[in-house]
Amino acid sequence: MLQLVDNGSITSVPGIKAIGIHAGIKKKKKDLAIIFSEVPAVSAGTFTLNKVKAAPLIISQKLVYKEETAQAILVNSGNANACTGEQGELDALETTAYCAKLLNIPQNSVLVSSTGVIGSRLPVDTVIKGIKNAVPKLNYEGGLDAAEAIMTTDLVKKSYAVTLQLSSGTITIGGICKGSGMIMPNMATMLAFIATDAKIEKNVLQSILLDCVNHSFNKVTVDGDTSTNDMVILLANGLSGVKIEFGSDDYYKFSSALLFVTQTMAKAIARDGEGASKLVTVNVTNAQTYDDADAIAKSIANSPLVKTAVYGQDANWGRILSAAGKSSANFDPAKVTISLGDLPVFKPNYTICLDEDLAKVELEKDEVTLKVDLADGTFSSTWWTCDFTEGYIRINARYRT
Amino acid sequence: MLQLVDNGSITSVPGIKAIGIHAGIKKKKKDLAIIFSEVPAVSAGTFTLNKVKAAPLIISQKLVYKEETAQAILVNSGNANACTGEQGELDALETTAYCAKLLNIPQNSVLVSSTGVIGSRLPVDTVIKGIKNAVPKLNYEGGLDAAEAIMTTDLVKKSYAVTLQLSSGTITIGGICKGSGMIMPNMATMLAFIATDAKIEKNVLQSILLDCVNHSFNKVTVDGDTSTNDMVILLANGLSGVKIEFGSDDYYKFSSALLFVTQTMAKAIARDGEGASKLVTVNVTNAQTYDDADAIAKSIANSPLVKTAVYGQDANWGRILSAAGKSSANFDPAKVTISLGDLPVFKPNYTICLDEDLAKVELEKDEVTLKVDLADGTFSSTWWTCDFTEGYIRINARYRT
Repeated sequence: MLQLVDNGSITSVPGIKAIGIHAGIKKKKKDLAIIFSEVPAVSAGTFTLNKVKAAPLIISQKLVYKEETAQAILVNSGNANACTGEQGELDALETTAYCAKLLNIPQNSVLVSSTGVIGSRLPVDTVIKGIKNAVPKLNYEGGLDAAEAIMTTDLVKKSYAVTLQLSSGTITIGGICKGSGMIMPNMATMLAFIATDAKIEKNVLQSILLDCVNHSFNKVTVDGDTSTNDMVILLANGLSGVKIEFGSDDYYKFSSALLFVTQTMAKAIARDGEGASKLVTVNVTNAQTYDDADAIAKSIANSPLVKTAVYGQDANWGRILSAAGKSSANFDPAKVTISLGDLPVFKPNYTICLDEDLAKVELEKDEVTLKVDLADGTFSSTWWTCDFTEGYIRINARYRT
Repeated sequence: MLQLVDNGSITSVPGIKAIGIHAGIKKKKKDLAIIFSEVPAVSAGTFTLNKVKAAPLIISQKLVYKEETAQAILVNSGNANACTGEQGELDALETTAYCAKLLNIPQNSVLVSSTGVIGSRLPVDTVIKGIKNAVPKLNYEGGLDAAEAIMTTDLVKKSYAVTLQLSSGTITIGGICKGSGMIMPNMATMLAFIATDAKIEKNVLQSILLDCVNHSFNKVTVDGDTSTNDMVILLANGLSGVKIEFGSDDYYKFSSALLFVTQTMAKAIARDGEGASKLVTVNVTNAQTYDDADAIAKSIANSPLVKTAVYGQDANWGRILSAAGKSSANFDPAKVTISLGDLPVFKPNYTICLDEDLAKVELEKDEVTLKVDLADGTFSSTWWTCDFTEGYIRINARYRT
């Protein structure tokens, strides 16, 4: 039984404390978060594929791959500590050293993450003062504050938790994330920090996370751009005592619960894309191969012409078909059915069956689903994106990332 | 000696007549063009790689590949005759049959091309009435009218001609094109019709055209989207008597003259991108391979974050470096120099040398050049794009293509 926790967050997970404060990196808003597990937690992570990697990302990636466990995550917004070279790594390590000292844990169990402006040196003194202020305030309800402190151009906090009944007891999965612009697959995506009290081996945890990220965060696009900083971290502190063995029933239940959490987060990120007014789900079915389905769904989700048409509530199936056609995928246009929600607008043999009034009803919704049935095989893929509005341009012409 | 012709057009080429009229496909604007060569002309063409190909494109592609020559091009705007299936081809053939009859030439020497709304049946009667009206008006100064009649959301007519002194005489190359939104490489680009009076074999003409298109139209992107209809056609009617042999001095002179014409057209298309306020040139140098240079230049030219930053006159080198990083290319970020025009803003070893005042001067220009020196090899690539403004969203949320 999977159950969503009201106002759930990463601190819904037993043994996880968090806090988010204003340290002074940004003018007024919260800009520093710490997440802390009472006991060392098995760590897993996925990291940007951008060749330009931010200093904190380089450090955290090494730690997740090298160390069995981690116990804290130090996150700041307002400064990405990216394109800052060796100095950037030294700066980040100075902050994790201080954080480890105050938390009384080894430095190599503190992961670090940053988001914000690229190419400015991290204001180390400000961060250190912030850590000093934040650590005593760590608490079991601090998840929502932490969610707020990691936001950049996000308009809403993103924070979720579920409980899951397994054969030997109940476990919790909770997390916070941030997204908005510069979102695109291959984990060059956004920040997400997830914790669970399940007891699970490192390699199993890593493989479940990878799989879930591939079907959630890596299927979200706002503008096709990818960032230097973005990562997903999953900590499993084992405090529930509920052990999850590879291949067991509980393993599959846990995997699908984590998938639910990561997809919920991914959709929230798409819906809150810069300037977005709608969540757009692109669902491609009956392709010859998974790669074909995925390439078409991605191409449609990334198409500015499709996204502006959704914004304009224009039932422009031609742009959808054209976006499918420009992908690398194999399909036969004459077999294609295109639907808005459950309303077909284009049927096989190039049959146009668009009812503008009914289409309008679909396109006025806050959540629009574009379905493409290729009638060519058995594979499918779903992507999430948002519509494309003047707001995106305004935000990005003025905000220096 | 390459010389630009004042108010040059496709009709600057001896033996080429053209006309552009209002046939009634659109409400008021010109929407039908005919280009006619007095004598059969050797034809070459490149066509969209989109898997969804419009009916006229399918017909013209077959003719260019199968027939040695062509003598006329029939073009309409306002209706793309795309996603119209077999009926679309029948409709297009009805119009070329009629056009051929009036011109007194075989039907298989009439190429056909359409641009505009996808998925509506071509109004054949309107087109036929237009042809009847247009053919008697064909004239040696009609190139600019034809350039106007092929426009969709273009704001300016695009029409050019050059003369070129070769060893045995002077030849002319002239052309018209249209672009605007839905522009992206691999010839899923736009419409361009070019003619020359040089005398040249079909396979030589085709290979020169392919090469020129690869370094001009295929390096232009407005929004990363690609269309179902777009093609470049080159007709060589030989009326100058100047023969161009493969590999001769004249061959290279002719090739570089055609490259000049196609690059001039490509840049004009980028500058007139939907909502654009600036032409942006992305120049990547000193890559390990051509593919690396090209992938990085393309990734930067396609990045909405880079394009909105240029619009906002924000010297955001971080977004440029990040866009380079998300490409598939190999490079070492620590070796990179990024310049705005000739002003370096980011030097090797992550050295930021941004002078905001000087950068502002560069970014206020109508033409902005973003240079990325990888210091890693000898290969380079140049792409053209435009900035990304609220105008793009407005146009595409409201215009049904």
